[in-house]
Amino acid sequence: MWDRLIFAPNLWTGGTDARHISNAALGIAAGRIVYVGQANDLPGDPSQLATQVEHRNQLLTPSLVDCHTHLVFGGDRSDEFAERQAGASYADIAARGGGILATVRATRASNVEQLVEQAAPRMRQLIADGVAAFDIKSGYGLDFDSERRMLQAARALGERLGATVRTSYLALHAVPKGVDRKGYLDTAIDDWLPQLHAEGLIDAVDAYHEHLAFSSEEVARLFARATSLSIPVRLHADQLSAQGGAALAAQFGALSADHLEYTDTVGVAAMARSGTVAVILPAAFLVLREKQRPPIADLRAAGVPMAVASDLNPGTSPLLSLRLAMGLAVSIFGMTVEEALLGATQHGARALGLEANSGTLALGARADLALWSVDRAEALPYWLGGELCVETIAGGRTIFRRA
Amino acid sequence: MWDRLIFAPNLWTGGTDARHISNAALGIAAGRIVYVGQANDLPGDPSQLATQVEHRNQLLTPSLVDCHTHLVFGGDRSDEFAERQAGASYADIAARGGGILATVRATRASNVEQLVEQAAPRMRQLIADGVAAFDIKSGYGLDFDSERRMLQAARALGERLGATVRTSYLALHAVPKGVDRKGYLDTAIDDWLPQLHAEGLIDAVDAYHEHLAFSSEEVARLFARATSLSIPVRLHADQLSAQGGAALAAQFGALSADHLEYTDTVGVAAMARSGTVAVILPAAFLVLREKQRPPIADLRAAGVPMAVASDLNPGTSPLLSLRLAMGLAVSIFGMTVEEALLGATQHGARALGLEANSGTLALGARADLALWSVDRAEALPYWLGGELCVETIAGGRTIFRRA
Repeated sequence: MWDRLIFAPNLWTGGTDARHISNAALGIAAGRIVYVGQANDLPGDPSQLATQVEHRNQLLTPSLVDCHTHLVFGGDRSDEFAERQAGASYADIAARGGGILATVRATRASNVEQLVEQAAPRMRQLIADGVAAFDIKSGYGLDFDSERRMLQAARALGERLGATVRTSYLALHAVPKGVDRKGYLDTAIDDWLPQLHAEGLIDAVDAYHEHLAFSSEEVARLFARATSLSIPVRLHADQLSAQGGAALAAQFGALSADHLEYTDTVGVAAMARSGTVAVILPAAFLVLREKQRPPIADLRAAGVPMAVASDLNPGTSPLLSLRLAMGLAVSIFGMTVEEALLGATQHGARALGLEANSGTLALGARADLALWSVDRAEALPYWLGGELCVETIAGGRTIFRRA
Repeated sequence: MWDRLIFAPNLWTGGTDARHISNAALGIAAGRIVYVGQANDLPGDPSQLATQVEHRNQLLTPSLVDCHTHLVFGGDRSDEFAERQAGASYADIAARGGGILATVRATRASNVEQLVEQAAPRMRQLIADGVAAFDIKSGYGLDFDSERRMLQAARALGERLGATVRTSYLALHAVPKGVDRKGYLDTAIDDWLPQLHAEGLIDAVDAYHEHLAFSSEEVARLFARATSLSIPVRLHADQLSAQGGAALAAQFGALSADHLEYTDTVGVAAMARSGTVAVILPAAFLVLREKQRPPIADLRAAGVPMAVASDLNPGTSPLLSLRLAMGLAVSIFGMTVEEALLGATQHGARALGLEANSGTLALGARADLALWSVDRAEALPYWLGGELCVETIAGGRTIFRRA
């Protein structure tokens, strides 16, 4: 006997051979998809097949995967947003203690429970928009205890809200003020990383590779250590300038290279060879008023899988909707609607290192689903804003349902 | 005895001297604001002052005003959105019967009740985002009966959902296929306009002034007729090319000129003289991937009040959140956060021709309010996406409350 059997007039399977099914049915048992197809082809009487039979007048899709977030942080920065948009520069704001330092200060001042309490409403917003799996990065602690609390908060959020969470260790986000650079790198790479990994807090290692952050040599040292610990790596690459970040990530077989505004054809080719996912982050581009767009056409031509993510963070991407990131990826970056849809499902799952059929409604896949008040998947990036998600299901269990 | 007394830790008054009040209270009687200020300064014991006393842990602001929408239409165009973003041109899509003609076809095929049923979910999305007053345009009917049904649907929507609706007669949106241009103008201006106005269906007259739509001479003829009937005018002006639209609108003392991407300094000066509101529509700019931005700095320098609106329509602005339009106006067009906030409140109300203190929490103003799950008004355009509105109140009556 299955646990749930959901009838839906429309279903989008996602996945490599994504297709639309009308008059669909989907069966769930033990948190997995055990039937997906035409309702007419069901192997028996619905009431005999499943404990719970649901007739829904909605679109059924894979739930969304937000594969790049900085969801956990203390405070917010809406005050400086107003200043910045009124003309204050990042340098002005940093000089009076604002910017990322303000977030580090507020994060350090919060215990795990406070970090969870501040992040949970943001995470619930994304879940109410169809997301059931998340990346959550550290990187606003920048000392051992604070980085650890961020990662513990990420774990606690996943458990509390019922969503999948994969953590990224991002101590190489910035060198904290007043700290020796060499000493910081030594401890962050050689002490904190193995220790926090031994505590089960790290699923991937990430770094901010940029002229104003960390160099290729520094990142390579971090990645070598991660690799020796069998931890997959990811990279903030080529966002504000061409740094060879994509190629560096590919060299270490990274799960993903993220941002990529300045990535050149060499970087794209390297990513294609290594199977590294390109994570596209349009809201940060929008908020920072950047001019240089990521090489979508090159990535497409090279067959690099593209993911789309929120980059949710208090400074450059205060985005509470992954569906909106899809819409922006289409309008700003010229991704196709199908690329955006796969980017927030299958390819996002791959960037997270989830199992192979995650982010698709395939037989045997984990039952991570979303129900929507529209008829077809194309409508999800089409509508900008709005509360279109009706239910989010993770591993067969409802983690959000609209009242 | 007041009807409602709302305590809120934070309140943003909106209006020309917008200010933040902490530990605020707001009293409502007969649909009007009868107290706004510090809770401590209340003229008596709360339970003696009002029938209903509410202690809310939220931000209280004026509700939002969406002063430019094409909310009423048949069908949707998410199918062609996917085609268009995959490379099909508007011309391709129009050639096979898509584009605005598809919307006209679906609109003409709908009776008033069907138009209301299709538009109500969209309007509810905007109300759930804090909007309590709307412009709704005709212009997808393009024959007498269909334009009339659109305007009747707009009226019905306002009554059914409890929101303020101002209608705009937009028969000069396009010349329908197979119809003689001169004949269309004659009937739309000289027959339909006076008749529909006599039926009480028209609050303003609008037109699409563009090289691919209607000329200055044609618009002037329409506006002269509207003026003779004492109907205020508005104009889709200078969106895709410099047409002198802003100056033309100003010449007729228009309530607003909308879009304005190509408006020059002559147009800006004319608007400043006539007191015409500049309605800024960033989502259409985004979806159309335009390059030319409206002259925000010139409008600011000239003291032209700027409104921000959704432009909700199925082709170029499938936007279900006015708060998101504010965020885009800031990020894409460089409006300040305060300009965006006033643009979606006081200045939007002015573009609609509402009474003078609409869109502000002033003593004596209509009690059109919104409650939000954030601490300060600056956070409303800061967060992109998300369900931040908790309650929307129109004329003292709750028309939306989050479960």
